[in-house]
Amino acid sequence: ARRRLHCIVGGLCSAFHVRCSGNKFQLNRAELRNLLGGELSHYLEASRDPRRVQEIISDLDKNLDGTMDFEEFVAMVTQLTNSDFSVNSKKKYSVS
Amino acid sequence: ARRRLHCIVGGLCSAFHVRCSGNKFQLNRAELRNLLGGELSHYLEASRDPRRVQEIISDLDKNLDGTMDFEEFVAMVTQLTNSDFSVNSKKKYSVS
Repeated sequence: ARRRLHCIVGGLCSAFHVRCSGNKFQLNRAELRNLLGGELSHYLEASRDPRRVQEIISDLDKNLDGTMDFEEFVAMVTQLTNSDFSVNSKKKYSVS
Repeated sequence: ARRRLHCIVGGLCSAFHVRCSGNKFQLNRAELRNLLGGELSHYLEASRDPRRVQEIISDLDKNLDGTMDFEEFVAMVTQLTNSDFSVNSKKKYSVS
Protein backbone atom coordinates (compact mmCIF):
# COMPACT_ATOMS: atom_id res chain seq x y z
CA ALA A 1 0.00 0.00 0.00
CA ARG A 2 3.06 2.26 0.41
CA ARG A 3 3.22 2.92 -3.32
CA ARG A 4 -0.50 3.17 -4.03
CA LEU A 5 -0.53 6.95 -4.53
CA HIS A 6 2.54 6.68 -6.70
CA CYS A 7 0.80 4.21 -9.03
CA ILE A 8 -2.31 6.39 -9.28
CA VAL A 9 -0.27 9.49 -10.11
CA GLY A 10 1.82 7.53 -12.62
CA GLY A 11 -1.34 6.03 -14.12
CA LEU A 12 -2.85 9.46 -14.67
CA CYS A 13 0.31 10.78 -16.33
CA SER A 14 0.60 7.80 -18.68
CA ALA A 15 -3.16 7.75 -19.42
CA PHE A 16 -2.69 11.27 -20.74
CA HIS A 17 0.66 10.78 -22.54
CA VAL A 18 -0.47 7.63 -24.34
CA ARG A 19 -3.11 9.75 -26.08
CA CYS A 20 -0.82 12.62 -27.11
CA SER A 21 0.86 11.94 -30.44
CA GLY A 22 2.32 15.32 -31.37
CA ASN A 23 2.43 17.82 -28.53
CA LYS A 24 2.94 15.80 -25.34
CA PHE A 25 1.37 18.52 -23.21
CA GLN A 26 -2.10 18.63 -24.68
CA LEU A 27 -4.72 16.56 -26.48
CA ASN A 28 -5.71 18.00 -29.81
CA ARG A 29 -9.24 17.80 -31.22
CA ALA A 30 -8.81 14.37 -32.82
CA GLU A 31 -7.19 12.91 -29.70
CA LEU A 32 -9.98 14.38 -27.57
CA ARG A 33 -12.58 12.78 -29.84
CA ASN A 34 -10.74 9.43 -29.47
CA LEU A 35 -10.87 9.79 -25.71
CA LEU A 36 -14.60 10.55 -25.90
CA GLY A 37 -15.44 7.82 -28.37
CA GLY A 38 -13.24 5.22 -26.74
CA GLU A 39 -12.62 5.14 -23.06
CA LEU A 40 -15.27 7.61 -21.96
CA SER A 41 -18.10 5.96 -23.84
CA HIS A 42 -16.97 2.68 -22.27
CA TYR A 43 -16.99 4.47 -18.92
CA LEU A 44 -20.51 5.76 -19.60
CA GLU A 45 -21.80 2.25 -20.34
CA ALA A 46 -20.37 0.87 -17.08
CA SER A 47 -21.26 3.86 -14.94
CA ARG A 48 -23.92 3.63 -12.23
CA ASP A 49 -24.49 7.36 -12.59
CA PRO A 50 -24.81 7.68 -16.37
CA ARG A 51 -26.63 11.02 -16.14
CA ARG A 52 -23.71 12.61 -14.29
CA VAL A 53 -21.12 11.04 -16.62
CA GLN A 54 -23.11 12.30 -19.62
CA GLU A 55 -22.95 15.82 -18.13
CA ILE A 56 -19.16 15.53 -17.77
CA ILE A 57 -18.85 14.29 -21.37
CA SER A 58 -21.04 17.09 -22.78
CA ASP A 59 -18.92 19.66 -20.92
CA LEU A 60 -15.98 18.03 -22.63
CA ASP A 61 -17.79 18.19 -25.96
CA LYS A 62 -18.00 21.98 -25.67
CA ASN A 63 -14.22 21.94 -25.46
CA LEU A 64 -14.00 19.92 -28.65
CA ASP A 65 -13.04 22.87 -30.80
CA GLY A 66 -10.05 23.42 -28.57
CA THR A 67 -7.52 21.22 -26.86
CA MET A 68 -7.22 19.68 -23.43
CA ASP A 69 -4.15 20.10 -21.25
CA PHE A 70 -3.14 17.80 -18.43
CA GLU A 71 -4.74 19.85 -15.65
CA GLU A 72 -8.08 19.80 -17.51
CA PHE A 73 -7.70 16.06 -18.02
CA VAL A 74 -7.08 15.50 -14.28
CA ALA A 75 -10.02 17.80 -13.43
CA MET A 76 -12.26 15.64 -15.64
CA VAL A 77 -11.00 12.43 -13.97
CA THR A 78 -11.64 14.07 -10.59
CA GLN A 79 -15.27 14.74 -11.59
CA LEU A 80 -15.68 11.13 -12.75
CA THR A 81 -14.10 9.88 -9.52
CA ASN A 82 -16.26 11.99 -7.22
CA SER A 83 -19.43 10.92 -9.03
CA ASP A 84 -18.33 7.25 -8.91
CA PHE A 85 -17.43 7.48 -5.23
CA SER A 86 -20.70 8.99 -4.14
CA VAL A 87 -22.76 6.36 -6.01
CA ASN A 88 -20.66 3.28 -5.22
CA SER A 89 -19.74 4.07 -1.65
CA LYS A 90 -23.27 4.89 -0.61
CA LYS A 91 -24.37 1.55 -2.08
CA LYS A 92 -21.43 -0.38 -0.61
CA TYR A 93 -21.73 1.11 2.86
CA SER A 94 -25.57 1.15 2.68
CA VAL A 95 -26.07 4.79 3.52
CA SER A 96 -29.54 5.93 2.39
CA ALA B 1 -6.29 0.88 -22.60
CA ARG B 2 -10.11 0.90 -22.75
CA ARG B 3 -10.34 0.42 -18.98
CA ARG B 4 -7.48 2.67 -17.92
CA LEU B 5 -9.68 5.47 -16.56
CA HIS B 6 -11.78 2.88 -14.75
CA CYS B 7 -8.74 1.51 -12.94
CA ILE B 8 -7.54 4.97 -11.95
CA VAL B 9 -10.96 5.93 -10.56
CA GLY B 10 -11.26 2.59 -8.76
CA GLY B 11 -7.72 2.96 -7.42
CA LEU B 12 -8.52 6.37 -5.96
CA CYS B 13 -11.70 5.09 -4.29
CA SER B 14 -9.95 2.09 -2.74
CA ALA B 15 -6.87 4.12 -1.73
CA PHE B 16 -9.24 6.22 0.34
CA HIS B 17 -11.48 3.43 1.71
CA VAL B 18 -8.56 1.25 2.79
CA ARG B 19 -7.58 4.03 5.20
CA CYS B 20 -11.02 4.63 6.70
CA SER B 21 -11.68 2.29 9.61
CA GLY B 22 -14.80 3.80 11.20
CA ASN B 23 -16.59 6.33 9.04
CA LYS B 24 -16.08 5.22 5.44
CA PHE B 25 -16.62 8.75 4.15
CA GLN B 26 -13.81 10.57 5.87
CA LEU B 27 -10.33 10.13 7.32
CA ASN B 28 -10.12 11.05 10.99
CA ARG B 29 -7.09 12.67 12.57
CA ALA B 30 -5.25 9.40 13.29
CA GLU B 31 -5.92 8.05 9.79
CA LEU B 32 -4.73 11.35 8.30
CA ARG B 33 -1.54 11.15 10.32
CA ASN B 34 -1.02 7.57 9.03
CA LEU B 35 -1.44 8.82 5.49
CA LEU B 36 1.09 11.58 6.15
CA GLY B 37 3.61 9.42 7.96
CA GLY B 38 3.26 6.50 5.58
CA GLU B 39 2.51 6.94 1.94
CA LEU B 40 3.07 10.67 1.68
CA SER B 41 6.47 10.66 3.34
CA HIS B 42 7.41 7.83 0.96
CA TYR B 43 6.09 10.00 -1.86
CA LEU B 44 8.16 12.94 -0.62
CA GLU B 45 11.37 10.87 -0.63
CA ALA B 46 10.79 9.72 -4.21
CA SER B 47 9.54 13.05 -5.52
CA ARG B 48 11.55 15.08 -8.01
CA ASP B 49 9.83 18.22 -6.70
CA PRO B 50 10.18 17.75 -2.92
CA ARG B 51 9.61 21.45 -2.22
CA ARG B 52 6.17 21.35 -3.88
CA VAL B 53 5.25 18.06 -2.20
CA GLN B 54 6.31 19.50 1.16
CA GLU B 55 3.96 22.45 0.53
CA ILE B 56 1.09 20.04 -0.18
CA ILE B 57 1.88 18.06 2.99
CA SER B 58 2.07 21.20 5.18
CA ASP B 59 -1.32 22.31 3.83
CA LEU B 60 -2.53 18.90 4.88
CA ASP B 61 -0.93 19.32 8.28
CA LYS B 62 -3.02 22.42 8.92
CA ASN B 63 -6.06 20.19 8.40
CA LEU B 64 -4.75 17.74 10.98
CA ASP B 65 -7.09 18.87 13.68
CA GLY B 66 -10.00 18.04 11.46
CA THR B 67 -10.85 15.27 9.04
CA MET B 68 -10.44 14.73 5.31
CA ASP B 69 -13.32 13.73 3.07
CA PHE B 70 -12.98 12.03 -0.30
CA GLU B 71 -13.14 15.21 -2.38
CA GLU B 72 -10.31 16.75 -0.31
CA PHE B 73 -8.34 13.53 -0.73
CA VAL B 74 -8.80 13.62 -4.54
CA ALA B 75 -7.90 17.35 -4.59
CA MET B 76 -4.65 16.49 -2.79
CA VAL B 77 -3.87 13.68 -5.25
CA THR B 78 -4.60 16.13 -8.10
CA GLN B 79 -2.03 18.57 -6.68
CA LEU B 80 0.55 15.79 -6.37
CA THR B 81 -0.21 14.64 -9.93
CA ASN B 82 0.06 18.09 -11.48
CA SER B 83 3.38 18.74 -9.73
CA ASP B 84 4.68 15.31 -10.79
CA PHE B 85 3.53 15.81 -14.37
CA SER B 86 5.14 19.19 -14.81
CA VAL B 87 8.51 17.98 -13.46
CA ASN B 88 8.62 14.55 -15.12
CA SER B 89 7.12 15.43 -18.46
CA LYS B 90 9.36 18.43 -19.00
CA LYS B 91 12.36 16.20 -18.28
CA LYS B 92 11.06 13.29 -20.38
CA TYR B 93 10.13 15.45 -23.38
CA SER B 94 13.16 17.72 -22.89
CA VAL B 95 11.35 21.01 -22.79
CA SER B 96 13.52 23.65 -21.11
